[in-house]
Amino acid sequence: MAKRNVCVIGVGMTKFERCDRDFTDLVQEAVTQAIEMAGVAPTDFEQAYAGYVNGMSTQGQRALYMMGIGGLPVYNVHNYCSTGSTALHLGYQAVASGMNEYVLAFGFEKMQKGPLETQLQGLKETLGQDADKKPPIAAVIFGDGGRQHMELYGTTKEQFAKVSVKNHRHSVNNPRSQYREACTLEEVLASRLVYDPLTLLQCCPTSDGAGAAILCSEEFAKKHRHSDPVKIVAQAMATDLPEDFALGALGMIGVGMSRRAAGKVYEQAGLGPEDVQVIELHDCFSTNELVTYESLGLCKEGEGGRLIDEGQVTYGGKWVVNPSGGLLSKGHPLGATGLAQCAELVWQLSGRADKRQVEGARVGLQHNVGLGGACVVTMYRKG
Amino acid sequence: MAKRNVCVIGVGMTKFERCDRDFTDLVQEAVTQAIEMAGVAPTDFEQAYAGYVNGMSTQGQRALYMMGIGGLPVYNVHNYCSTGSTALHLGYQAVASGMNEYVLAFGFEKMQKGPLETQLQGLKETLGQDADKKPPIAAVIFGDGGRQHMELYGTTKEQFAKVSVKNHRHSVNNPRSQYREACTLEEVLASRLVYDPLTLLQCCPTSDGAGAAILCSEEFAKKHRHSDPVKIVAQAMATDLPEDFALGALGMIGVGMSRRAAGKVYEQAGLGPEDVQVIELHDCFSTNELVTYESLGLCKEGEGGRLIDEGQVTYGGKWVVNPSGGLLSKGHPLGATGLAQCAELVWQLSGRADKRQVEGARVGLQHNVGLGGACVVTMYRKG
Repeated sequence: MAKRNVCVIGVGMTKFERCDRDFTDLVQEAVTQAIEMAGVAPTDFEQAYAGYVNGMSTQGQRALYMMGIGGLPVYNVHNYCSTGSTALHLGYQAVASGMNEYVLAFGFEKMQKGPLETQLQGLKETLGQDADKKPPIAAVIFGDGGRQHMELYGTTKEQFAKVSVKNHRHSVNNPRSQYREACTLEEVLASRLVYDPLTLLQCCPTSDGAGAAILCSEEFAKKHRHSDPVKIVAQAMATDLPEDFALGALGMIGVGMSRRAAGKVYEQAGLGPEDVQVIELHDCFSTNELVTYESLGLCKEGEGGRLIDEGQVTYGGKWVVNPSGGLLSKGHPLGATGLAQCAELVWQLSGRADKRQVEGARVGLQHNVGLGGACVVTMYRKG
Repeated sequence: MAKRNVCVIGVGMTKFERCDRDFTDLVQEAVTQAIEMAGVAPTDFEQAYAGYVNGMSTQGQRALYMMGIGGLPVYNVHNYCSTGSTALHLGYQAVASGMNEYVLAFGFEKMQKGPLETQLQGLKETLGQDADKKPPIAAVIFGDGGRQHMELYGTTKEQFAKVSVKNHRHSVNNPRSQYREACTLEEVLASRLVYDPLTLLQCCPTSDGAGAAILCSEEFAKKHRHSDPVKIVAQAMATDLPEDFALGALGMIGVGMSRRAAGKVYEQAGLGPEDVQVIELHDCFSTNELVTYESLGLCKEGEGGRLIDEGQVTYGGKWVVNPSGGLLSKGHPLGATGLAQCAELVWQLSGRADKRQVEGARVGLQHNVGLGGACVVTMYRKG
């Protein structure tokens, strides 16, 4: 597999929030930000990858046409919660393989009508749940994963709650986050119980939004006066294997996919978790962040609770995880999330993260997982 | 752009028909046919591209998991009526670029509840139509395109109807086609008027189905004892440009996209329409087949009617267009159509088309267009 580094010369995202704006308007804002950062004419895009889960087909084209961008190949893609990274991964491959020099990946979602719930209805029926009386299916799956972790490793409710405290604290400095208020451990634990051990402040809110990334070859970046762009040095997607489900609830939340995708990325990059300073990972629920520390190899299996207790995953620790505030604060518009994670890491690695800036960040890691499913892990490097 | 030929060593498709079978069952049948033809272990697929318009996300994974195929990257993609070819095009690029050696593209659709109508509801509202009283929106758009062609070039209703007569005649020999009855010109013209000039027998029926194609490098094909496989020698996708819509109704049905995609393919291949013997093109309505003769350069603009009058597009003519019976006979399950066209051409070029066989076929052309939109044109060659 012929591979070359891929530069990310432009990124953008809207504020994530419940809003009445049309998806084309959201996309235009995110893509315009990315174009302005890249400083290259949008009409030069060779291909475009549009990620969204809900809505009519060819909405990717519609959003681009509204910006006067047409003619080029456009692919509308989805993979539930990892939809944004799926668009990003196709764009990455187009450039890494040598096929294209300059492509656009973007993603968006209008979440107001609870589309994830609608989408997961089939799964809900499979599990024999009554839609009206039970908690949201995603909370059940990720709550069960957390409970299995507690049983296996003695992880505590407080440790999961501390993840939320950390991410909400980070979000205070992110003007694009839906929620921007810090909260105490007591507040997290005292908020409404959604599904044991998950309280409301440990679940991501419902938000609309869009994100975008412009990818190109190193030659193209140089030609357009990007002397030292952030690069994707490795990226991999993994899907479920039958043996994953034998792990029980932890298997259901994608631990197997996450491990395999991360393993491939470390191998491709020739770098390991010890080389990383900043991480955006898929904290749709607090339990999933803690479990993902282990899947990404930040610690051994069962030691995720220790990492959060020791403060190793925030400013001053070994890694800053979810400096953006994560999905828990920002929200999680399915098609946009993977691009928003990418944007945060590119801002971090190029010194554009303002008050959220992780000092000395040279290598960043992104983790975006969707049940059903697909996990995409990406490693970024400055210089 | 580094490019190499891509071999299609396995294809398959279900019979297209209204049925109660689950999509996973349909996919399994189509993919199993393709695997049997390829004679390679399915667990070796490096990536998979799943095309469908309607349904929950990650159905591509679900269909593969049911066959025991997991772990690999899976991309769920759509582009309305060209969804199948969109999956095929991503698979093609993965191999043509040198990134992958062996990938799977498949597509499926359950069409029973009129999902195209649901999907096009937004467009219908834009056009100010009353959903209950007016003909299906697709018939309106493709009917208007036909009427503009009549006004501009003197094309007749009989010429459009002859397209249906030809394709239904071809379908008699295709056991996978929903409709397999020949009909006379009088019968086509006398069938219920859907939207002038389109009568019922000039509209594709509603069908469920699945299709699949296995793509690999020439090296991989040789290693697995495919001594002379059918190759994709060129493929291109085009989307709309603002100036296309200035063409009026003909612009709406994708004439601009079709011309540009075909032009790119001829340029990439170094071959022209005169080098082609067999064509599968997007005859969702009879009008679109006739118009597409011109978009593909089989004749000059305005001369499509002459081609059908002269019998140049059937057995004994210059090209055999839609030997499968086309969408008009087979039906048009959105995600499956592009893969079914591919399957027919691979069968034709490898001498597997039984009573439909086009003698001396060495080069085939595929055209699949989706409003909204995207057009994919593909050139296949034997040897």
